[in-house]
Amino acid sequence: MTDPSPRNEAEDWWRTALVRMEPNHIDIRGRPIEDLIGTIGFVEMIWLCLRGDLPSEGQARLLEAALTAAVDHGPQAPSIAAARMAATCGVGLNSAMATGLNMLGDVHGGAGEQAVSLYRLALSLVEEGDAPKVAAERAVEHWAANHGKYMPGFGHRFHTRDPRAPRLMELVKIAQDKGVVSGRSRDIALRIEQHLSDKKGRAIPMNIDGATAVIYAELGFEAPLARGLFCLSRSVGILAHAWEQTQQGGRNKGPLPRGHLWTYLEAGMR
Amino acid sequence: MTDPSPRNEAEDWWRTALVRMEPNHIDIRGRPIEDLIGTIGFVEMIWLCLRGDLPSEGQARLLEAALTAAVDHGPQAPSIAAARMAATCGVGLNSAMATGLNMLGDVHGGAGEQAVSLYRLALSLVEEGDAPKVAAERAVEHWAANHGKYMPGFGHRFHTRDPRAPRLMELVKIAQDKGVVSGRSRDIALRIEQHLSDKKGRAIPMNIDGATAVIYAELGFEAPLARGLFCLSRSVGILAHAWEQTQQGGRNKGPLPRGHLWTYLEAGMR
Amino acid sequence: MTDPSPRNEAEDWWRTALVRMEPNHIDIRGRPIEDLIGTIGFVEMIWLCLRGDLPSEGQARLLEAALTAAVDHGPQAPSIAAARMAATCGVGLNSAMATGLNMLGDVHGGAGEQAVSLYRLALSLVEEGDAPKVAAERAVEHWAANHGKYMPGFGHRFHTRDPRAPRLMELVKIAQDKGVVSGRSRDIALRIEQHLSDKKGRAIPMNIDGATAVIYAELGFEAPLARGLFCLSRSVGILAHAWEQTQQGGRNKGPLPRGHLWTYLEAGMR
Amino acid sequence: MTDPSPRNEAEDWWRTALVRMEPNHIDIRGRPIEDLIGTIGFVEMIWLCLRGDLPSEGQARLLEAALTAAVDHGPQAPSIAAARMAATCGVGLNSAMATGLNMLGDVHGGAGEQAVSLYRLALSLVEEGDAPKVAAERAVEHWAANHGKYMPGFGHRFHTRDPRAPRLMELVKIAQDKGVVSGRSRDIALRIEQHLSDKKGRAIPMNIDGATAVIYAELGFEAPLARGLFCLSRSVGILAHAWEQTQQGGRNKGPLPRGHLWTYLEAGMR
Repeated sequence: MTDPSPRNEAEDWWRTALVRMEPNHIDIRGRPIEDLIGTIGFVEMIWLCLRGDLPSEGQARLLEAALTAAVDHGPQAPSIAAARMAATCGVGLNSAMATGLNMLGDVHGGAGEQAVSLYRLALSLVEEGDAPKVAAERAVEHWAANHGKYMPGFGHRFHTRDPRAPRLMELVKIAQDKGVVSGRSRDIALRIEQHLSDKKGRAIPMNIDGATAVIYAELGFEAPLARGLFCLSRSVGILAHAWEQTQQGGRNKGPLPRGHLWTYLEAGMR
Repeated sequence: MTDPSPRNEAEDWWRTALVRMEPNHIDIRGRPIEDLIGTIGFVEMIWLCLRGDLPSEGQARLLEAALTAAVDHGPQAPSIAAARMAATCGVGLNSAMATGLNMLGDVHGGAGEQAVSLYRLALSLVEEGDAPKVAAERAVEHWAANHGKYMPGFGHRFHTRDPRAPRLMELVKIAQDKGVVSGRSRDIALRIEQHLSDKKGRAIPMNIDGATAVIYAELGFEAPLARGLFCLSRSVGILAHAWEQTQQGGRNKGPLPRGHLWTYLEAGMR
Repeated sequence: MTDPSPRNEAEDWWRTALVRMEPNHIDIRGRPIEDLIGTIGFVEMIWLCLRGDLPSEGQARLLEAALTAAVDHGPQAPSIAAARMAATCGVGLNSAMATGLNMLGDVHGGAGEQAVSLYRLALSLVEEGDAPKVAAERAVEHWAANHGKYMPGFGHRFHTRDPRAPRLMELVKIAQDKGVVSGRSRDIALRIEQHLSDKKGRAIPMNIDGATAVIYAELGFEAPLARGLFCLSRSVGILAHAWEQTQQGGRNKGPLPRGHLWTYLEAGMR
Repeated sequence: MTDPSPRNEAEDWWRTALVRMEPNHIDIRGRPIEDLIGTIGFVEMIWLCLRGDLPSEGQARLLEAALTAAVDHGPQAPSIAAARMAATCGVGLNSAMATGLNMLGDVHGGAGEQAVSLYRLALSLVEEGDAPKVAAERAVEHWAANHGKYMPGFGHRFHTRDPRAPRLMELVKIAQDKGVVSGRSRDIALRIEQHLSDKKGRAIPMNIDGATAVIYAELGFEAPLARGLFCLSRSVGILAHAWEQTQQGGRNKGPLPRGHLWTYLEAGMR
């Protein structure tokens, strides 16, 4: 950035710290690509790209568990259904995948990101002097006032106990015991779970988003990356479903079987 | 599928072998999700979703090398540039990622898929009795006749020797020596590289797409999945760039710095 | 393009004949935007952008009829279903629209483009000396050999007689009688329809794609623009459905009502 | 919805008031499609789909002016640039269009929607008893407090006076004089413009988004549809640019000309 020539102005416009390139040379975050291939794992590469350094073994395995847990939840998920439909419409697998990914918006893909924010809000209250139990309550209250009744990361419309969450939390505990993570996000998340259940009078257990958010928060990822990492994870299921649909065949797959028509809402029914 | 009631007709319409679900229970390819989390790696999960079984250790590491190698090639790639621009337009990270992924079409993301097809075409000629050298030549000829001058997987507009390819090929060789893969796709790819270079009178070395295609072909993936796997890999770079741009800030980032305007083509210049 | 400075090189990279801009001045195809607004219609603007000149009144009305005819075919179309699902996932209306549009690929959105190509193939045979009837037969034969059994623009899986086609063809006939179009594409399309029906032994009537393709071909649009224009048209329905769904509410709308699960394919059922 | 059978449950899940279908019959908003084709214009069809009834002639022309005005603002817009790049990546025109459309998020495509909300906020204050001048000031203040410094619909980073706005406002005034619209949104928008300029000490003129928002608000569209309608409008430019790029050719068009590389940010420069 020493030369103020127009060429450099355009090149500066696209500045990045991620990748350096010269003919026959590619550095990712300052490391020659050929030194990384076959040396570090895919999860380590994900961390390196997003964070700029390499994770410890314990950090990598915890991130890996989160990425592994969220790959698929079946074709009733709109992202998966849309990717399967797209696969019958005459577009490439990349576009079928993009169709599914594009749907992981604030509602379908944002719960992990929101849960990280919720935990950090509660932890900031602890730092300001609240007891953890009080901080959990106040964070929930604040969230509901600002974002409405859906508490990200807790409860599930299908499972009464999401089987992925306890397993992930078990891994966080092990990592905490080994000193890999501090356990502070885990602790506050458990307190929020307790508070929500007490308030409701029945268990409102942590779900996959709440548990992966604990991991992302413990590992120091910024909240929006919880969505980004979920997108990487769910992309696996999106691809697998789009490919299975490709093999099943079909043209212009609609949401209902052939022969079905939607209900038409006449004037009085709308 | 024993009950022909309408409910089952609709449920059959969305049939899948990927995932089974009951309340509090999720199976991925017949395995309880909680048995997979923290037990198998992310790469193994990718394989499981796409293939229905688990890879051997050698297969997993080879797949991992391919996935690791292709994560990023910088913001001059239209997919990366578009994702960075999208990140300044007021959409979520998922939509920024979808924007980039959607661009990995036949030209930008299809070379790996095409190279797998090219190798398999050549190998089918070998099976029909051609000597490998002849099969390589005939496959190239056939490809050019049907698809034009771009030979997928060989040559690079920026690198004279793509640093990722030799490293990947080295890993294939090691896997071959260990009996993980047969080496047949590697062999035919090398013959194609030799033939192209001989024909051109200068080195036309294998590039990243040609080398990852060797791996995907050796591992038995169908050609379209070479694109799908590339999409998973490049999604990492797309996410990392979108996130870096988010942190750099900006609103409605155009391709050129502020103050630049495009050249207007008057009537005679079009 | 007289100055070879780097700045101009970058600006030339984004050259366009569509729009010229200076501060406080915007030309579309060489015409000041303020002279177009409120003076020409939206359909005329579409033509101007795509073709570089303004249509005659007769041309504009024929294009308008085609654009009007294809706006919607209900939520069993995957593009519409996906846009409605996206509208419940926490993304903006633009992303819901993009989701639907992205699905109008070769199968879902390509029939008009393909039909234009089919008609032009047949007309080129006429120009080479074939009688129109023979040209229609040979074009169909050639298409089937190269692209498979689906003959773009004819037959419909739901309607035995698509109600949009005869109305559009009536308008083409009127335009032909007024000298707006030559009627050559209409004539060859009717011959193809006749040939297909004769061959099949039952009516294989022209559908919406076949009829709009007649219009686009008569108006001189290149084949890929038939898809582009269909996309503009169907975007209206996509937007309207996404908006209706937004008003109906819902979160993460799946393809089937709550409580439904897909059929799981056990090993023997795949 | 009288029959609670499972089939109807699934069909009710996709209920819509937009379109009714039977074999050989399609109704749009209760009107047979063949009665609409060639009878109503494309703009009238857009209104019919979104609103459920037909507009008056004056309403249709005002909507048409807004749709016509916003079709293109050149390839420095990220949506246009991305669509042009996508057109070189081996995807269909529909996917190139989706790529551009997907970028019209809160920042790139949301100003019109936000301006409608801003006007309605100010008008609600008038209804509560504020003088219009005071309401304009309070609405601006409230907006800035809740959404930050960018005031949607006013000012432009390139034009000091967006040439589209005064022309659109002139058409609104004519429509107001004819009794087509009330002029209340126009009035409050002008007061906001005046207030912003007074506060800043220099003209902060209404831009295209502010002016089209006046039209959409005057015509009674809900705020999110201002974005939806902008998407329909800009889709025209997106398509035209993608098509022009297709004709210019190129493969994997990056943001900068070949031979350019981005600036690599070394550790100290980030």
